[in-house]
Amino acid sequence: MKNTLMNRPLIALTQGDPAGIGPEIIVSAWTDPNLHALCRPLVIGNVEVIRRAAALIGAPLEVVSIKDPNELEGTSAVLGCLSAGSRDAADVAPGKVDPRGGQAAYDALVAATELALDRAVDAVVTGPLNKAALNAAGHHYPGHTELLGELCSVDDVAMMLYLQPRPDMFGPAGLGVVHATLHMSVADAVRSLRSDRITTCAHLAHQALSRLGEGRLTGSPRIAVSALNPHAGEDGLFGTEEQEVIAPAVRACHAAGLAVHGPLPADALMVQARDGQFDAVVAMYHDQGHIALKLLGMHQAVNVTLGLPIIRTSVAHGTAFDLAWQGKAETTGLFEAVRVAVRMVNAESESAAETATLSG
Amino acid sequence: MKNTLMNRPLIALTQGDPAGIGPEIIVSAWTDPNLHALCRPLVIGNVEVIRRAAALIGAPLEVVSIKDPNELEGTSAVLGCLSAGSRDAADVAPGKVDPRGGQAAYDALVAATELALDRAVDAVVTGPLNKAALNAAGHHYPGHTELLGELCSVDDVAMMLYLQPRPDMFGPAGLGVVHATLHMSVADAVRSLRSDRITTCAHLAHQALSRLGEGRLTGSPRIAVSALNPHAGEDGLFGTEEQEVIAPAVRACHAAGLAVHGPLPADALMVQARDGQFDAVVAMYHDQGHIALKLLGMHQAVNVTLGLPIIRTSVAHGTAFDLAWQGKAETTGLFEAVRVAVRMVNAESESAAETATLSG
Repeated sequence: MKNTLMNRPLIALTQGDPAGIGPEIIVSAWTDPNLHALCRPLVIGNVEVIRRAAALIGAPLEVVSIKDPNELEGTSAVLGCLSAGSRDAADVAPGKVDPRGGQAAYDALVAATELALDRAVDAVVTGPLNKAALNAAGHHYPGHTELLGELCSVDDVAMMLYLQPRPDMFGPAGLGVVHATLHMSVADAVRSLRSDRITTCAHLAHQALSRLGEGRLTGSPRIAVSALNPHAGEDGLFGTEEQEVIAPAVRACHAAGLAVHGPLPADALMVQARDGQFDAVVAMYHDQGHIALKLLGMHQAVNVTLGLPIIRTSVAHGTAFDLAWQGKAETTGLFEAVRVAVRMVNAESESAAETATLSG
Repeated sequence: MKNTLMNRPLIALTQGDPAGIGPEIIVSAWTDPNLHALCRPLVIGNVEVIRRAAALIGAPLEVVSIKDPNELEGTSAVLGCLSAGSRDAADVAPGKVDPRGGQAAYDALVAATELALDRAVDAVVTGPLNKAALNAAGHHYPGHTELLGELCSVDDVAMMLYLQPRPDMFGPAGLGVVHATLHMSVADAVRSLRSDRITTCAHLAHQALSRLGEGRLTGSPRIAVSALNPHAGEDGLFGTEEQEVIAPAVRACHAAGLAVHGPLPADALMVQARDGQFDAVVAMYHDQGHIALKLLGMHQAVNVTLGLPIIRTSVAHGTAFDLAWQGKAETTGLFEAVRVAVRMVNAESESAAETATLSG
């Protein structure tokens, strides 16, 4: 199944925190015909907020309230917004932590996730939320990833930061970095590192890059498992986690037939990954993956939640409160997140079509 | 004092482990007239090993054994080698861990350090050593940095990875990354993180970048102190080291008049540093600094030991046993290390000349 105008995936864009840059990047992207060539988008959020964002950027955009994802075929001049949550989201001031902003982001995410679980949309692309506002609204999650895991009743979720293939770097499927631990202190990351979690992350990386590598990779995705310690522990001199925790996980992956290498020293590994020697990296903690990915493509990085029964991507940047509602925010990250979601939907459809053909 | 042919600094190049790429990159760089335009080099190592390396790369190089650093004015055709250590260094096989190789690297480093402490040379640029071979020879140091601290009887040493200024990135003085902890497990790095050590590193960064920024920076070097935890601890949610250990160090630096910022989230900070917003970064642990620096300039990175009474730089790469004695090794890193050493010598001389003028 090719991505044609006839058969573009239906993508729900959540507005994120109304105090942040989510609304303005959504309307800004919406006015670009490229978005509509890629997918059939709809917005999930607050109609008044979206209208105000359109006015902010001076977009001649008609914002229409819809009840059903398929109700309206959006164009660069007409935007369909499915309302989620309370109307008081419209009272949130720009750039401020406000529980109503956190609640609005939460409500939009819940609505979008339910639509995706019901197969009423093909994928969810989320705008940025503010953790402090989310917490102030009574939702105690360190981020989207953990919240999505709970909404989908899945334990084994992982955050992948993904950069699409480029002429000058990465392999033919781009580069994904999956995080074995995420939103916790480094001390907790070290304490909670487990072999089975690393194995799970390698499997999730394998699945994700197999999908994103469809028609691009000839063999299995090449997955590098990072060491935790400098020089990969220097034979136990700088820590034993490589020998006791990470190497057993790599062996389990080998036994399962995955093309997994490691544990490899993180600093050298990231250079090899940039140079196209690996399709995915399993990072042991947040900054190990994030330092590399942000340097390799701050604005191009896409956050993909792995392990969910739905397809969800996100901008990798935050709410940027210091920049919000000034009409200056860039849409690069949002476009990348939509493109990756579309690629994942199409790969899944092709795979389903192939299965149907084989069994038919 | 300008760097002229008349007044080029005298630089001791140590051969490193004879099983590695040290000898061949030294002779390869030696045959390039650019090296002699930059400095008056001499080699400290084993004459037979150096002759063999010259033969390997087919260099028409006369290798002369010298007893005194000033005995011979080297040219691209004549190399002066001051012997250090045992003759059996010449029996070490290429690419193998051998205690004799570790001992040879150790002996060359000790000899070079003594010459620098005696002001018989202006700076030391070290070839790569192999830690396993060094340990096998009975010298139990995780690397050059710790060994140099002991040879110079200094406790507060720190490793700085440094990249010279470039047209497309960094500030006008380049970018230095100083490591608050280095060759230890991540668990130990977290446990041993101390405010006074971070303050010391910020002061060392200030001194180094003041020197390297002479004539380039208009104000104080801008120093970013990295957080340890993701999102700089997210207000204590992901760890308290930022509040309890790092922020007090930053305040102490402010009180001392340094232009220090932080603690800042490491992933965003490294992008800001690349984009020229900081002249130096104080990293909390090995990989935090190394992942960024290697991505920003794998072959250009120079290892500078801060806190020593001598000037010492090094290639940032290792012995590359897999590549050694094949005549393929690149000299980029060595040239960068020499250039940085020369810049530091010249800045020190200018500063000394200025002091003399002011007090004269």
